[in-house]
Amino acid sequence: MSGRVDVIGLGPGAEDLRCPRAALALAQATDLVGYVPYVERVVAEGGQRIHASDNREEIMRARLALQLAAEGARVAVVSSGDGGVFGMAAAVFEAMDHGEPGWRDLEVTVHPGVSAVLAAGARLGAPFGNDFCVMSLSDNLKPWTVILNRLECAARGGFAMAFYNPISKARPWQLGEALTLLRRHLPGQVPVIFARAVSRPEEAVAVTTLALARPEQADMRTLVIVGNAETRLIPRTGQDPWIYTPRSVGRESA
Amino acid sequence: MSGRVDVIGLGPGAEDLRCPRAALALAQATDLVGYVPYVERVVAEGGQRIHASDNREEIMRARLALQLAAEGARVAVVSSGDGGVFGMAAAVFEAMDHGEPGWRDLEVTVHPGVSAVLAAGARLGAPFGNDFCVMSLSDNLKPWTVILNRLECAARGGFAMAFYNPISKARPWQLGEALTLLRRHLPGQVPVIFARAVSRPEEAVAVTTLALARPEQADMRTLVIVGNAETRLIPRTGQDPWIYTPRSVGRESA
Repeated sequence: MSGRVDVIGLGPGAEDLRCPRAALALAQATDLVGYVPYVERVVAEGGQRIHASDNREEIMRARLALQLAAEGARVAVVSSGDGGVFGMAAAVFEAMDHGEPGWRDLEVTVHPGVSAVLAAGARLGAPFGNDFCVMSLSDNLKPWTVILNRLECAARGGFAMAFYNPISKARPWQLGEALTLLRRHLPGQVPVIFARAVSRPEEAVAVTTLALARPEQADMRTLVIVGNAETRLIPRTGQDPWIYTPRSVGRESA
Repeated sequence: MSGRVDVIGLGPGAEDLRCPRAALALAQATDLVGYVPYVERVVAEGGQRIHASDNREEIMRARLALQLAAEGARVAVVSSGDGGVFGMAAAVFEAMDHGEPGWRDLEVTVHPGVSAVLAAGARLGAPFGNDFCVMSLSDNLKPWTVILNRLECAARGGFAMAFYNPISKARPWQLGEALTLLRRHLPGQVPVIFARAVSRPEEAVAVTTLALARPEQADMRTLVIVGNAETRLIPRTGQDPWIYTPRSVGRESA
């Protein structure tokens, strides 16, 4: 029996937003590897061995997955959303790049999933209807100065933005500083959205503006979306407004 | 019977990369609205009425969808990939914003899908393992100067990049000029990937560098990916290398 690694994007939460290809790879695995809450989300119907680990242990987790596969296991490495967007995919390839030479010959497949940014965008309308960027605000793995420069570049470029990892107990001030920087470059009425756990029972969405946005509106599980200067709201009675970014720039549309 | 609009992301092509939620909404529709090749991809098993239209007619198509829904139809508006990423979602909200006031009361749901950028990333490894941006290189709807500024901002920020609409018969020189601009800001060895029709039978993937990339390597159906200065290749025998962007910036990882 030859081992393999399937890096699986579980999607944002709802069962029917998981791709059939990902669900099949999950069902065929002998071993499940992942961050505790994501592994818990997966019902190990096939009697898989479970290897759940803590947050911020991605490289150890990726090494374990490759090692198990080298021993013949069929390993599913699970991430929420899409494994390629601040999920486990990069960690698996980092571990392969710096690990045992034999790991490069292992069969590895990355199965895409609906990322939080796509799920949140769809929930709200079309905030990413024009050019956009996707960033992590965590300075655990990159200097804060790099993040500030990226924010400034994104604002100067007129990109809509999606922020993963906006805030945590260990990183309480970063989101506030990011919003302060953005207010120097963008109009105060630019829409800001706090989209928490979209498609899950605990989903919570709040729409505000750059001028009014407060860091306390986010937690670890919130995706923060900042529109560009042309992002528009369509009010609705009794519901959140639709939010969309026009496909055109600098001209009247429709 | 009250009408509704479901904006549906079909995924990149393969049937098993389409979310069950999108497939269900499609099956329940009375009317299918979309660009000809995307509508053709959908087998109208339920005997739906088909309204296929040409490229660059997005707003007319969106208005038709809203009008049909206002008359009581259950309309599926289909896009390849995710409707929110250079698909039909923004067009539907633009049409609503500038159209009949009653259209705002229609029930509209956007069903996310696996976008080409996620499918191509997964196919190649994890090129979007750090901050990235997603752009359309088409100057049909925005001035070329805006696109050049965004490219420069993306390069200065150190974002990996994904380009939709890189080239067409009517837009033959834009990708070449974009690559020329990027060469002024990024090292020549930065990986560039031409990912065409990922997950479909006609899939074709080519890996090169910024120094060597030629516009002729892309066509209308190609997603072009440009790494950042830290994006790495893992060579494999007999296969394309894995490509990933480390999660860390400016430090040795793993």
